Amino acid sequence: MNKLKIGIVGAGRIGNVHAESITYHIPEAEVVRVSDVVEESARKLAEKFGIPAYSADYMDIINDPGIDAVLVCSPTPTHADISIAAMKAGKHVFCEKPVHTSLEKIEEVARVASETGKKLQIGFNRRFDHNHRAVRRMVENGSLGRVEIIKITSRDPEPPSPEYAASSGGLYIDMMIHDFDMAMFLADSDVEEVYATGTSLVDPRIGEAGDVDTAIVTLTFKNGALGVIDNSRRAAYGYDQRVEAFGSLGMACDENDGDSTVKVSTAAGVVGEKPQFFFLERYMASFTEEMRQFIAAIVQDTEVPVGIHAGLMSVVLAKAAKKSLDEHRPVKVSEIYGG
Amino acid sequence: MNKLKIGIVGAGRIGNVHAESITYHIPEAEVVRVSDVVEESARKLAEKFGIPAYSADYMDIINDPGIDAVLVCSPTPTHADISIAAMKAGKHVFCEKPVHTSLEKIEEVARVASETGKKLQIGFNRRFDHNHRAVRRMVENGSLGRVEIIKITSRDPEPPSPEYAASSGGLYIDMMIHDFDMAMFLADSDVEEVYATGTSLVDPRIGEAGDVDTAIVTLTFKNGALGVIDNSRRAAYGYDQRVEAFGSLGMACDENDGDSTVKVSTAAGVVGEKPQFFFLERYMASFTEEMRQFIAAIVQDTEVPVGIHAGLMSVVLAKAAKKSLDEHRPVKVSEIYGG
Amino acid sequence: MNKLKIGIVGAGRIGNVHAESITYHIPEAEVVRVSDVVEESARKLAEKFGIPAYSADYMDIINDPGIDAVLVCSPTPTHADISIAAMKAGKHVFCEKPVHTSLEKIEEVARVASETGKKLQIGFNRRFDHNHRAVRRMVENGSLGRVEIIKITSRDPEPPSPEYAASSGGLYIDMMIHDFDMAMFLADSDVEEVYATGTSLVDPRIGEAGDVDTAIVTLTFKNGALGVIDNSRRAAYGYDQRVEAFGSLGMACDENDGDSTVKVSTAAGVVGEKPQFFFLERYMASFTEEMRQFIAAIVQDTEVPVGIHAGLMSVVLAKAAKKSLDEHRPVKVSEIYGG
Amino acid sequence: MNKLKIGIVGAGRIGNVHAESITYHIPEAEVVRVSDVVEESARKLAEKFGIPAYSADYMDIINDPGIDAVLVCSPTPTHADISIAAMKAGKHVFCEKPVHTSLEKIEEVARVASETGKKLQIGFNRRFDHNHRAVRRMVENGSLGRVEIIKITSRDPEPPSPEYAASSGGLYIDMMIHDFDMAMFLADSDVEEVYATGTSLVDPRIGEAGDVDTAIVTLTFKNGALGVIDNSRRAAYGYDQRVEAFGSLGMACDENDGDSTVKVSTAAGVVGEKPQFFFLERYMASFTEEMRQFIAAIVQDTEVPVGIHAGLMSVVLAKAAKKSLDEHRPVKVSEIYGG
Repeated sequence: MNKLKIGIVGAGRIGNVHAESITYHIPEAEVVRVSDVVEESARKLAEKFGIPAYSADYMDIINDPGIDAVLVCSPTPTHADISIAAMKAGKHVFCEKPVHTSLEKIEEVARVASETGKKLQIGFNRRFDHNHRAVRRMVENGSLGRVEIIKITSRDPEPPSPEYAASSGGLYIDMMIHDFDMAMFLADSDVEEVYATGTSLVDPRIGEAGDVDTAIVTLTFKNGALGVIDNSRRAAYGYDQRVEAFGSLGMACDENDGDSTVKVSTAAGVVGEKPQFFFLERYMASFTEEMRQFIAAIVQDTEVPVGIHAGLMSVVLAKAAKKSLDEHRPVKVSEIYGG
Repeated sequence: MNKLKIGIVGAGRIGNVHAESITYHIPEAEVVRVSDVVEESARKLAEKFGIPAYSADYMDIINDPGIDAVLVCSPTPTHADISIAAMKAGKHVFCEKPVHTSLEKIEEVARVASETGKKLQIGFNRRFDHNHRAVRRMVENGSLGRVEIIKITSRDPEPPSPEYAASSGGLYIDMMIHDFDMAMFLADSDVEEVYATGTSLVDPRIGEAGDVDTAIVTLTFKNGALGVIDNSRRAAYGYDQRVEAFGSLGMACDENDGDSTVKVSTAAGVVGEKPQFFFLERYMASFTEEMRQFIAAIVQDTEVPVGIHAGLMSVVLAKAAKKSLDEHRPVKVSEIYGG
Repeated sequence: MNKLKIGIVGAGRIGNVHAESITYHIPEAEVVRVSDVVEESARKLAEKFGIPAYSADYMDIINDPGIDAVLVCSPTPTHADISIAAMKAGKHVFCEKPVHTSLEKIEEVARVASETGKKLQIGFNRRFDHNHRAVRRMVENGSLGRVEIIKITSRDPEPPSPEYAASSGGLYIDMMIHDFDMAMFLADSDVEEVYATGTSLVDPRIGEAGDVDTAIVTLTFKNGALGVIDNSRRAAYGYDQRVEAFGSLGMACDENDGDSTVKVSTAAGVVGEKPQFFFLERYMASFTEEMRQFIAAIVQDTEVPVGIHAGLMSVVLAKAAKKSLDEHRPVKVSEIYGG
Repeated sequence: MNKLKIGIVGAGRIGNVHAESITYHIPEAEVVRVSDVVEESARKLAEKFGIPAYSADYMDIINDPGIDAVLVCSPTPTHADISIAAMKAGKHVFCEKPVHTSLEKIEEVARVASETGKKLQIGFNRRFDHNHRAVRRMVENGSLGRVEIIKITSRDPEPPSPEYAASSGGLYIDMMIHDFDMAMFLADSDVEEVYATGTSLVDPRIGEAGDVDTAIVTLTFKNGALGVIDNSRRAAYGYDQRVEAFGSLGMACDENDGDSTVKVSTAAGVVGEKPQFFFLERYMASFTEEMRQFIAAIVQDTEVPVGIHAGLMSVVLAKAAKKSLDEHRPVKVSEIYGG
């Protein structure tokens, strides 16, 4: 069998995650080259997974004619340009989220994808999570009837440093972007209007830096359904990731994953496991599954499961939410994009 | 023992509920008189619970010097005036919700309560529910730290007739009023601002009548916490009543009550009980408990657990929500009351 | 309506339970007379529930021509003779368990019931529990296919005093008798053979008194299914009452009832409610339901839901278990009865 | 780093499982040689995991001086002799269960392990399962106080062919052996006495072949606790694997793993996931963990987590159970071994 040849740009945490998935779980592909501006990082990743080549320059990947697909795992500001270069060089692209903070740039990426005809998948891994996917399946197969309400709870176990928060672009684009995508995924619809609240209750320094750490955002979907997302940058009990889809025929919701199903009953109460704490523990299987489906879309020449539209609309919603918070009013999505 | 003597105005469903609680579960009190404009209804209730006197005229209760307390279970428009008359006649009052749709009228009731010094309790029974009360206890005892997010899901099993919906004053005051009160109860705080969405997805005739049947309302509490309530007039699986309080130290949430704890595992799946369908089945114990505490507050001369402030603020929030929906913007509570 | 007239023999805890059920929840019947050898106990019960007559002599009940049915709630050794006297006097009888420790005496009771044609119900209240009944329903309606395994866990929250244990007849007849009946109820079959283990781990004084406080008993049912019961006289976390029925098409099991459905998630874990501690709290509704069905069987002249066969076979199994423990071997039921 | 060199004898299902664990999840070791009497099976496994050498003869492994440890994954009758040969050749051994059906042979294996001082681990993978291990942890850390009752439910999703059942040595040694080991693991004690029931309810051909397919076995542990195991060769709802440990301070129990935490609420009920069906899906992580700990015991020269005592006593209990069934009486373990 000829394995698909993969290059990875960016040898940070997520680059390592994808290298692990491909090396251990996806026999149809192999990573043949990795780059990182910190060459030592690239070297380490290469050594860890037995990857034959590494360098500091991602152009070594772009220019390698033996490479079929590129995983763009570099810092956010570089996502778009590297993706464009890779597609122009004839390579399929898996691009981490967010694609870019400029909508024009995202549109350019979309245009290049369309012109080159290369596969382009965006890294919304949560769509591949065993729990959330099972909720989506109930929407898809009609078990819930017409979708009417979508609810998403998404709380990080621990807040980021105030410095990170300040440089992250803010909660809506740094954290809630996943939930915006999940909301559209579960409702099977784009969004018409956004109303955002937000406040700083977790760490006053986050508020001083102009960001929020606790937020509730209401969505009106184009298909008529309503939605709500709540975020907190801190949950004392672990990483809280729950979704609910309610429709004319019923409701599907998931619970957090714990390390075991054990319940301990004593005079103190009946105690079960806390939600898993670390996002890689919680979502590792979803990262593997998104990669598997990306590879399968290339090999079988089918549509990628998460295209550039998702990459674009999630950023649009983050911008609409920020505008709603700033102007203290509901904001039409068309004010941000496509109006 | 001298039992407290109770008169009940209104022999409908809720009048019967309170009569049953007192007769069977509260040995410190007894119902001695009941009235209903439909005298036959009063007669039936009296007979059912062995109550010695009944009539069509509630003034028979007001004027009965042997009566210590009056339960006002008549139609909403009459709540305030009957409560006022009863207090002026020296009787303690338990008044069903909503007290009135006019804030001035509610303030008048409050004034009379203050002037006469009589006990006045408002019928927010859900505060006495075993599940919701346990969540509140976690807020009160500090287990959750500072409250940051309150979430309430409240969905009726079946929609009312369009005629009822049209005459009910609308979803926010007819249905969500319970949830507004619950939100303030769980957050232990009044509300600063309200943003309401609402749409008609359940029955188009409800929309044609100018009301909504599906709604999400965001709250900003005075203490800085955020809240969200979702309502639907129909849930295919039963009466869905769940609350969640999230704070700096943790989270408490409840689940619906079913008829049993049984799980049946077959090739078709692992099937558990649906939520109880009928509100009287789900909340009967809470009705008894609110009455028990009302009687106790009189007997021991302590403060009632749900005073007129709750009666007032729940209506204020309903009005703010309606205004928010109509004007499509967040509405400060001070625009409605106390500004 | 002519209410059914009830006499209660024995004004202890269980007599009070039945008086409460009838007075408050069963409008078709009323208690008109109560007796207790301690007349003061009879007086108190009568006063509490507004019962017009009481005395120390149960013959006052037997001889009262106005009484339709007698509830035999006196100490175990008197159950049989009072039941016999009542039936011979033309009254229906509800008899608490165990009917007697002598099988001959139980057979005599059965014979009198048959000869007089009076209703005779035995007090196995757990058959009427909302959870266990739902498991049984799955057996009855065929959802589980052919029953193959029955499992019952039954653990008291706290051990009795060693004195009580010594005088109780032992764990198998005092405590496990409920579970023997439940096993036959769930398997829908009598038992062929019993193998009993038992030991004293909870309180050494129970062991010194010749009894066991921890026990596992294996059953072979006549219909071919297998069963197992585990008992402990103490569970630190509350009253543990769970059953499971496993068959060719699936499995139904129940969980304990707690005071609420609340889960509290903190850094310490996800904590839910303990099982309810006190048997009257856990099983009160089942006592009411068994009484309701007893009254209904009289009023509608239908078969009682728990007849003398259950009263007999439960004692037979207790004796078989004791013999098995003593002789350290499996014991055929036919060695005890009907061989 | 010098990786530990592993040879695998037997390229069947379990050989593949261990090869996968080592190749993908245990960087401290690598498989360098595999053998299988069907050489084609060895070749396939070698190719799949990039193993450099394979052959039909396990002596190629035994004689390879570069190999540090041997995994004995061949058919049961060969386990003991291959283990002995490997240890005598200076290699550590991981031996699948059961070690042998002859107790003398198992003792010989133990003797060789003792004489050679090589590590010898037995393949009771369930001890490493995330759920069962968490129950055991509660026993170990004293949360449950003194252990009094152990309960194990273990039901396969589908029965084996009657041919397999006939040749398997019977349910007690083929299936319940895992549960015997788990019982001793959870009770932290050997067993004193066994009483076995068993019948054929699932497939009459299994009964005709002299085996049982449904069984309940009661255990008396040396430490005074009681235990019970129930087995069925078929569960319509999936692979049912649950354990419970009950002690003086409380109880710990686990639930089955499903594919997601999703619950779907419709008019038909509240439906959750069935237990995972296939044992490799359910227990894959435990196979990896047992291998990780085997490798770690070698690398760090510590005691293996599951030694030959477990391999011996599990077979002893299976024999005691069979004798108990055949002779229809409780059987002392000392009748089988060590008496």
